[in-house]
Amino acid sequence: MSSLQAIKYSRGKLEVLDQLRLPHSFHYDVVSNRSEAFDSIASMRVRGAPAIAIVASLGLAVELHHQGLAADSSSEAITQIDQALDYLKGSRPTAVDLSNAITQLKSRIRESSEGTKEDIISAFIDEAEKIFAQDLTTNVAIGDSGADWLRRNAGATAETPVSVLTHCNTGSLATSGHGTALGIIRSLHSRGLLKHAYCTETRPYNQGSRLTAFELVFEKIPSTLITDSMAAALFRLQKDKANVAAVVVGADRVVRNGDTANKIGTYQLAVLAKAHGIKFIVAAPTTSIDLVTPDGSGIAIEERKKEELTQVTGAIVKEDGTIEQGSKARVATADQRVDVWNPAFDVTPAEFIDTIVTEKGAVEKSADNTFDFSQIMAERWARVVNS
Amino acid sequence: MSSLQAIKYSRGKLEVLDQLRLPHSFHYDVVSNRSEAFDSIASMRVRGAPAIAIVASLGLAVELHHQGLAADSSSEAITQIDQALDYLKGSRPTAVDLSNAITQLKSRIRESSEGTKEDIISAFIDEAEKIFAQDLTTNVAIGDSGADWLRRNAGATAETPVSVLTHCNTGSLATSGHGTALGIIRSLHSRGLLKHAYCTETRPYNQGSRLTAFELVFEKIPSTLITDSMAAALFRLQKDKANVAAVVVGADRVVRNGDTANKIGTYQLAVLAKAHGIKFIVAAPTTSIDLVTPDGSGIAIEERKKEELTQVTGAIVKEDGTIEQGSKARVATADQRVDVWNPAFDVTPAEFIDTIVTEKGAVEKSADNTFDFSQIMAERWARVVNS
Repeated sequence: MSSLQAIKYSRGKLEVLDQLRLPHSFHYDVVSNRSEAFDSIASMRVRGAPAIAIVASLGLAVELHHQGLAADSSSEAITQIDQALDYLKGSRPTAVDLSNAITQLKSRIRESSEGTKEDIISAFIDEAEKIFAQDLTTNVAIGDSGADWLRRNAGATAETPVSVLTHCNTGSLATSGHGTALGIIRSLHSRGLLKHAYCTETRPYNQGSRLTAFELVFEKIPSTLITDSMAAALFRLQKDKANVAAVVVGADRVVRNGDTANKIGTYQLAVLAKAHGIKFIVAAPTTSIDLVTPDGSGIAIEERKKEELTQVTGAIVKEDGTIEQGSKARVATADQRVDVWNPAFDVTPAEFIDTIVTEKGAVEKSADNTFDFSQIMAERWARVVNS
Repeated sequence: MSSLQAIKYSRGKLEVLDQLRLPHSFHYDVVSNRSEAFDSIASMRVRGAPAIAIVASLGLAVELHHQGLAADSSSEAITQIDQALDYLKGSRPTAVDLSNAITQLKSRIRESSEGTKEDIISAFIDEAEKIFAQDLTTNVAIGDSGADWLRRNAGATAETPVSVLTHCNTGSLATSGHGTALGIIRSLHSRGLLKHAYCTETRPYNQGSRLTAFELVFEKIPSTLITDSMAAALFRLQKDKANVAAVVVGADRVVRNGDTANKIGTYQLAVLAKAHGIKFIVAAPTTSIDLVTPDGSGIAIEERKKEELTQVTGAIVKEDGTIEQGSKARVATADQRVDVWNPAFDVTPAEFIDTIVTEKGAVEKSADNTFDFSQIMAERWARVVNS
């Protein structure tokens, strides 16, 4: 789909794009074992819920491919893989995709428990590769469903293409490719239904300005970058011109009633969209849906250290205004003594969301302002909710 | 009041704090003539509507004190001063305080038109100094009125002190001292009515993180810095704790019906405050009120260049995490090819504002959702509106 790839993989070899260096330089880190995968995720060199799950899975797959396991029995092999997966889970505790991938991998290796240690390793590698391949299929399906939804519900046609705003980065860089929320924008664009894409800077970590703006330029999608503080002014301006039809965001975790944890600032955009009569769309693969947690009050919000807010990293701008290619510097924008509140996520209540678009279609909100995933996830629903 | 001073002046000598270097280093620029004053304002080394008016007025006063005028007659002297003032007006066209100061200065020198050239210069210097002195009195009055309003309308008492959020910088650094919106916070704090002050980073120019957070730390006011994207999450969090009672902001310009132009992001905070049942207070000296313009649709919004959004200046953070004192670097946070929308201001409609606090008291909103300044500004109202 896109030529931008955050994750390059062939059996026995995994390379992960260091997104902290974007957009000024491209550098792939070789990830050859669990601790390098953990570090890649924890340091945010790779981010995005699907990409995190893929890097954790494939990172361990590469280690097992080359080093195997010291286990003396297949049951010991399963225990050792379980331990490795539990360790990897700690790299980013909020991301449910990672948690779901781990469940899936643990289940798959148990299917080979009658086999040899090598069979178990082989099953693991196969399943990790399946998670990777499945993600692209999922994203394209989300993009298509989202574009369809906007055609049906926001009047997006070739004659009246729509403008959308997105937050954070949910594109090729956050996934195996295409993207989730940005996948909807890609699908709209490829069908001639997109007028203009706006992206927020997404403070404090600047995923919008560093990554999404870059992807949009890379893909030649008509687009404009704004600060997070400009969204309402844009909605008001554009409302006069009947222009911005929807806000499209991804999700770190959607819980059972549709309450959605996503990058800090998402809730604010949802409130502003509602106040301006603009649709609010969450794009999420079903792997990001957590049926165990009933509502948003059960979501723990990770708080990150204050330096991530009071310091900014970027490429050095020279005296003449040009960029020093490949350079990187860190500058402080605030007195370092200030107290800071730095939640990584917020929770958008379901009532502010118009639809949640999954690879199995767009789920509409029920009359009681919640979402019902029992139809599109019948098997998991039966296992998790009705058990 | 405060020991922080953006503007240091004694007759014949003006020094202006370079706010672009804050909070990491203190450097005062000597401003000795009109072009240095223009440059100080246009480059944003000094900002804040009242401070701009003061620097323009005193900058020209210092020039006249030392260099006098080449005029051959008092009428020529008036013409030359008029020209200097018109030139200074171009340094920051949106700021109505500057425009009002210029009108006041032009009027005052005409009262001396019967005198000598020296009388005219002397009258100018006297009036410029009056503008400076008046500003501090005004700010203290605004602070007191605002604190009173919160006592009456938001239950701020010594037993139940309130928390407030402010945007941009409206403190000692934006004025002759004390501040407008931040003056209300100072007055609340000194009366024991303040629980906690939150300030937004205020992208893209970071006046909140660079200046307000610094002022609050300097004054030992309990405070926390957040990004612009966190306001709603804070309101929601704090709403549960019944904590944030009000958003308090300044104004670059308030027009006749109360519509208010202020730093980009202000409108967004007003919409979010309303959605969360939080009071929204504009602090503005009557010099910031423009009775000529009927409503916000008449306010032209200045758009600034995209590098002010895609590049960030700050002090260099060394490898060990400490700050290199006095250093300054500029880093790019986005691909420089991206298209950017960078409005400096937005307009908050009067309907979102609960009160506009002036040095003549807090003006309450009328039943038709507009403000009526005819009582507190009777003379100007008669001259401007009824003429």
